[in-house]
Amino acid sequence: MTGRPRVREDLTAAAISLFLAQGYDETTVDEIAEAAGVARRTFFRYFRTKDDAVFPDHDDCLKRVQDLLAAADPRSPALAALREAAHLVLAMYADDPATAVRRYELTRRVEPLREREITATNRYQRVFTEFLHRRAAAPGPGTGPGTGGQAGLRDEVAAATVVAAHNHVLRQWLRAGGSDDAHARLDAALDAIEAMLDQWLDGEHPDRADPVGEDVVVVAVRRGVPMWRVVREIEAATGGA
Amino acid sequence: MTGRPRVREDLTAAAISLFLAQGYDETTVDEIAEAAGVARRTFFRYFRTKDDAVFPDHDDCLKRVQDLLAAADPRSPALAALREAAHLVLAMYADDPATAVRRYELTRRVEPLREREITATNRYQRVFTEFLHRRAAAPGPGTGPGTGGQAGLRDEVAAATVVAAHNHVLRQWLRAGGSDDAHARLDAALDAIEAMLDQWLDGEHPDRADPVGEDVVVVAVRRGVPMWRVVREIEAATGGA
Repeated sequence: MTGRPRVREDLTAAAISLFLAQGYDETTVDEIAEAAGVARRTFFRYFRTKDDAVFPDHDDCLKRVQDLLAAADPRSPALAALREAAHLVLAMYADDPATAVRRYELTRRVEPLREREITATNRYQRVFTEFLHRRAAAPGPGTGPGTGGQAGLRDEVAAATVVAAHNHVLRQWLRAGGSDDAHARLDAALDAIEAMLDQWLDGEHPDRADPVGEDVVVVAVRRGVPMWRVVREIEAATGGA
Repeated sequence: MTGRPRVREDLTAAAISLFLAQGYDETTVDEIAEAAGVARRTFFRYFRTKDDAVFPDHDDCLKRVQDLLAAADPRSPALAALREAAHLVLAMYADDPATAVRRYELTRRVEPLREREITATNRYQRVFTEFLHRRAAAPGPGTGPGTGGQAGLRDEVAAATVVAAHNHVLRQWLRAGGSDDAHARLDAALDAIEAMLDQWLDGEHPDRADPVGEDVVVVAVRRGVPMWRVVREIEAATGGA
């Protein structure tokens, strides 16, 4: 980014400041351009409407997410690719905490802006779901049972889970003023759901439902131990799901 | 519903038909009112804008969902209440399959309408999350570890999972022409995610992480058996999570 003019970022910061200071409806494109020190036509090189200016570049990020998922090693877990993708999305906010916090303040006040953010989020969820569908449809290791019925359900739920975790982390981080490491928060959240999602994504493989080996692992479980701990123990003992 | 004039439903059916036949931008409120056999002012008694007319009454349904969740027995599982709520939402579509299928055709074509539907869906997800937060904060059985940190994550992910399951079922049912039992499809999907979600919602109770009893259950696990089967076995052996 060094040396590149930050015109887009400046326009976004100016738009958010003006919307917060004098109201969304009351602010014009001309005022935003002036506050950012550029001409009106420069504004329209970056954004179509004044509310576009509020948001990070979701179109660009969605494209990068799609590229990342398309290039993901089919032999590594699907969730690893989704984790990377979630970090890409988070970086749009985490790279500029001051703007992110002020944008959050704004979208909480202005309902149509909040709705635009929700719509953007949904596009990532669809791309994540499609990635899992392709994974499930592809031959080779990690093959799931296709995209119909419960497999389609599984992919959609897994994608929704990753997006919900991302959104939760982002919101908590913003509420805390954006002062600590958002990516570390996301890693912690994704760790917490990973054991669950691994089961969800890999547990119903038909090739695994009929095990090749017959090795038996004996696990002693105390009553009352949370199931996620049991699952973790069994995974460790059986070499992972 | 018997005997009640179906003015709202007639207007919705007329709006969807006209949008599909002659285009969304090309259709006026007057044409919709005329096609439904009512006056223009009657249209505005039910809807604020012409795109409002396309959708089922999400405001009314959200209110009923909130009432249902507020009245849910705190001693029964949170997921049971969310299941009922998901069926309430689904019923708006399933009660009138012909309109639902045509609406789906329309929202697939007209991007702004699809986005409105996504926004509506997100409101249910928020209400579900808040319900789980309240459950976690309330004293008594079923108490979770509060709403901060991982507990907040857990609630948000659980709500997203139920909504994703609902949306998946609704879409599959609409694609199949809305001809079979949507509620049976939803039950099957919710059954599939229930074991996972039960763990997710109940597995991290602090009072359960420190078990009172020390009874030990020994489970023999074959390598390669899907984890959800193992979990089910252990649940059966330990008397459920």
